[in-house]
Amino acid sequence: MIELKKNEQIEDLHCENYKIIQNKEMFCFGIDAVLLANFAKVGFRDKAVDLCCGNGIIPILLHAKSKCDNLIGVDIIEENIFLAKKSCELNNIKINFINADLKNITEILEKQIYDVVTVNPPYMANDTGLKNIKDAKTIARHEVLCNLDDIIKNSSNLLKYGGKFYMVHRPNRLAEIFYTMKKYDIEPKLMQLVQPFKDKEPNIVLIEGIKNGKPNLIIKNNLIVYDDINVYTKEMSKVYE
Amino acid sequence: MIELKKNEQIEDLHCENYKIIQNKEMFCFGIDAVLLANFAKVGFRDKAVDLCCGNGIIPILLHAKSKCDNLIGVDIIEENIFLAKKSCELNNIKINFINADLKNITEILEKQIYDVVTVNPPYMANDTGLKNIKDAKTIARHEVLCNLDDIIKNSSNLLKYGGKFYMVHRPNRLAEIFYTMKKYDIEPKLMQLVQPFKDKEPNIVLIEGIKNGKPNLIIKNNLIVYDDINVYTKEMSKVYE
Repeated sequence: MIELKKNEQIEDLHCENYKIIQNKEMFCFGIDAVLLANFAKVGFRDKAVDLCCGNGIIPILLHAKSKCDNLIGVDIIEENIFLAKKSCELNNIKINFINADLKNITEILEKQIYDVVTVNPPYMANDTGLKNIKDAKTIARHEVLCNLDDIIKNSSNLLKYGGKFYMVHRPNRLAEIFYTMKKYDIEPKLMQLVQPFKDKEPNIVLIEGIKNGKPNLIIKNNLIVYDDINVYTKEMSKVYE
Repeated sequence: MIELKKNEQIEDLHCENYKIIQNKEMFCFGIDAVLLANFAKVGFRDKAVDLCCGNGIIPILLHAKSKCDNLIGVDIIEENIFLAKKSCELNNIKINFINADLKNITEILEKQIYDVVTVNPPYMANDTGLKNIKDAKTIARHEVLCNLDDIIKNSSNLLKYGGKFYMVHRPNRLAEIFYTMKKYDIEPKLMQLVQPFKDKEPNIVLIEGIKNGKPNLIIKNNLIVYDDINVYTKEMSKVYE
């Protein structure tokens, strides 16, 4: 029997009967995490690491999809790791959740052996000098404890030759993303922009890179989320299935 | 009276009554050039350079749009420059067309004074070791005489602080394009993907960069060219107006 603390609640993931425990006071997962877990390809025998894993939504969805037992989730906030472990218990699955700073991750995890790294990082550059770095929501949204360079450098250090990198981010940072991926030998290979509505500009981008890959980017057609307010498009309904 | 050689013909540009002379044996302009000329913003008083200008289509269209008298076109093929000059005569307009190698362009044109650089470069990387470099069509399509790095480095050398760079290219090279732009201090600021049909993946990308600009990329909604075979979409019809 799982004990829930105040503010914690169980959400059904509508996927293989998997559930997740969320704390309303912390950062709760959004459409971005669901899109990334859908976009990422993880095989049953792959070794995969999810950085900035938060309450574990991405490894849990990847487990539902792949049944892979070599999934690792890393987050700097201890409370997130407690929650993620509790969700594992609830689902009766095995995922290795580690409370660590991704900037030192290769002191804990072996270098260059992972098939897949996924990440749904903080989106906002810390160019405004934010100081409130103890707040979990701020840490999840703003680059106060790690930035794009830290994330991609460490992802590259974890990935083996030919390993795959999957990231969800904001389109306004695409140029920096591609620059930094190439800087650390992760070649952008596949990209999909996500628009909230047909006539709205994209606000999410999904990217697949390959460590030491050859340059040749495929751009999928944009994914549109809503046909109308609260009405998913057919494509988006498929993602949620 | 303009004398036309064999294989040369006059085409109406359907824009301010401007015309262009093309040689069917050479590289003739396509939709890419029209899209780039539409996408680029050139002011009446701007100093602008078009690299890889071919038969002059982009400066001629920019002249039609802006009436700017400080337009320069540069091409390495002498015959293209002859044609471009003949089109100027035909339209009774002033554009400075120069037969030069863009790799040495700053020996001819002053550094860091230009407001705008436009370029519709060869799209295909020369990774197959092509040798037939005398053929004008090959030079226009493949990076045999210059590559992305040469083009962006020299564009950056020409642009003043805050100057604008406009390029049309293939989406599969987007990561290299962004990497190289940032390498030479041209920050990608605006991007639009172009799809031939609604259900086909994008095959053209339009990019605006700003010399020494701050990172923040806006991605416009994709432009779709055809509703049906030979039937332009409303958006595309506007471009051709």
